[in-house]
Amino acid sequence: MNALKCFRKVGGVVAVALGVTLLAVAWGHAQTDPLPSWNGTAPKKAIVAFVEKVTKEGSPDFVPVAERIATFDNDGTLWAEQPMYFQLAFALDRVKALAPQHPEWKDKEPFASLLKGDVKGALAGGEPALAQIVMATHAGMTTEEFDQIVTDWLATAKHPTTKQPYTAMVYQPMLELLAYLRANGFKTFVVSGGGIDFMRPWTEKVYGVPPEQVVGSSIKTKFEWRDGKPVLVRLPELNFIDDGAGKPVGIQLHIGRRPIAAFGNSDGDLPMLQWTTAGRGARLALLVHHTDAAREWAYDRTSATGRLDKALDEATAKGWTVVDMKNDWKVIYPFEKP
Amino acid sequence: MNALKCFRKVGGVVAVALGVTLLAVAWGHAQTDPLPSWNGTAPKKAIVAFVEKVTKEGSPDFVPVAERIATFDNDGTLWAEQPMYFQLAFALDRVKALAPQHPEWKDKEPFASLLKGDVKGALAGGEPALAQIVMATHAGMTTEEFDQIVTDWLATAKHPTTKQPYTAMVYQPMLELLAYLRANGFKTFVVSGGGIDFMRPWTEKVYGVPPEQVVGSSIKTKFEWRDGKPVLVRLPELNFIDDGAGKPVGIQLHIGRRPIAAFGNSDGDLPMLQWTTAGRGARLALLVHHTDAAREWAYDRTSATGRLDKALDEATAKGWTVVDMKNDWKVIYPFEKP
Repeated sequence: MNALKCFRKVGGVVAVALGVTLLAVAWGHAQTDPLPSWNGTAPKKAIVAFVEKVTKEGSPDFVPVAERIATFDNDGTLWAEQPMYFQLAFALDRVKALAPQHPEWKDKEPFASLLKGDVKGALAGGEPALAQIVMATHAGMTTEEFDQIVTDWLATAKHPTTKQPYTAMVYQPMLELLAYLRANGFKTFVVSGGGIDFMRPWTEKVYGVPPEQVVGSSIKTKFEWRDGKPVLVRLPELNFIDDGAGKPVGIQLHIGRRPIAAFGNSDGDLPMLQWTTAGRGARLALLVHHTDAAREWAYDRTSATGRLDKALDEATAKGWTVVDMKNDWKVIYPFEKP
Repeated sequence: MNALKCFRKVGGVVAVALGVTLLAVAWGHAQTDPLPSWNGTAPKKAIVAFVEKVTKEGSPDFVPVAERIATFDNDGTLWAEQPMYFQLAFALDRVKALAPQHPEWKDKEPFASLLKGDVKGALAGGEPALAQIVMATHAGMTTEEFDQIVTDWLATAKHPTTKQPYTAMVYQPMLELLAYLRANGFKTFVVSGGGIDFMRPWTEKVYGVPPEQVVGSSIKTKFEWRDGKPVLVRLPELNFIDDGAGKPVGIQLHIGRRPIAAFGNSDGDLPMLQWTTAGRGARLALLVHHTDAAREWAYDRTSATGRLDKALDEATAKGWTVVDMKNDWKVIYPFEKP
């Protein structure tokens, strides 16, 4: 046999081996469901159909990678939000931690009620009371100090009913959805009413969303020098509320282009879904409906946290995808996985 | 020869072929200079040394890809800024274009002077006059309409002295630098005092920087419904000035982590460079010094546009990299390339 024949002979062996490998890979792909925690109901079908449509080159619905922007609300969409927003739990814990430095709080509302354990009484003061709690706990330190405070709190705080760390109470099906979209060329953003700097210390690790892809509410910061080093100090002054009609505004300011897919769970997400679906071409708008009182919580039209009322009506009218958590999700949290 | 021998024989041939290929690749690499428009002077050496250091796994200066954030000023750093900021030229052209709809401008400053061709007289009113011009030309329309207005202007407007389109007056060496950093895992951001929505329509095409990686000054926008469709309307109200001490603030708000490399050309960039270099580990701070009156412009400590005074002193004191455009750059603009 000369070298050429050798090549041919070996080539044949390689070709067979390659064929077997390709078959195995194809089979592997068919076997690998990117959304294993989703039941095969309508929402999963709608998600997969949308992704296949916009990623298929030559199709009329094809969207170039650069324009595959997907925005996710956080509270109630990516992680739980009951019995209160987790950031509020953080603020309340901080009031307790800071109380020794603030003897005046004993006689000053809303702090006095809070320190007596009366959360409801403290929050009876409405938005001004809430603003006082937020500013007392979120401002005054540098951005790096705040990052560390959030990180330290998350490392030890436990949710009152599940006794799990708060970052464990993320929705497994949504983690799979984030990864599935990214595997298909999407850039995934968090667009939340929550504090932008409360989320950034952990979104990369928990959601795979880096700090620069987090949009949220903010207070003002100021560049100044402390001990000969430049710092950014967090001021007790509101900068932006990234909720309701603020969400499209935040999206424009931070992202600068319209998402083609948006995910929310409450009326605060309605303008984001309207803005997203009003663009040309294929669009996906999805609402997570909290229907599972056994595994999570069941709430919608009358809930103080995460009210879903007008957005539910509009989703029905416009044919948006609504996830029925009880029926559409096999598991809720990663820690439930067998 | 049995199959095994065949494999060995073919293997030898393949090994030789592979060796030749690898040599060719290595040679090709050695031949391909990622910064061909830079002379081999100190700035180029500093850039390459920095990039090699932070990308070398196992080195004490190694920086993970996710943290390789580089921020670039725009006016005077990525494109020219003389005889006036290009965005100001845009605003002046818009005043002329809009004049027929504003008969009252004939008798109202700063518009009256502008329409008579007296730019200096119009701008004699200082910041309030400038603010009036900006709001009259940048607000009132939707974000999509403004995007189109900028795009249309750039398609036809020519620079007064070079007669080139404004987007042709970008610095070839900086385009190479942007590409070189991205090829080494950096995420490149524009952080400019210019209008965020004035830059976004073209930064992706011209710099390879997508809209979501542009940070800039902004006016407020409002979500509302027009003709049954949701729109974002640009309001004549300042939102944020991304200049001077505002740059670290803008970086924190949009990016949420500290850059490891920052590039500027004026005192307005000094806080960004201070913020960048105050972080731990290897850092690169670079100033473009406009020293080439023949090929571009020569200006620094006394220029009204792009003043470089305090930052030049601090660069000298701290050993930051200063580009002498005349001596360090082989070409200035892409249209000069042979």
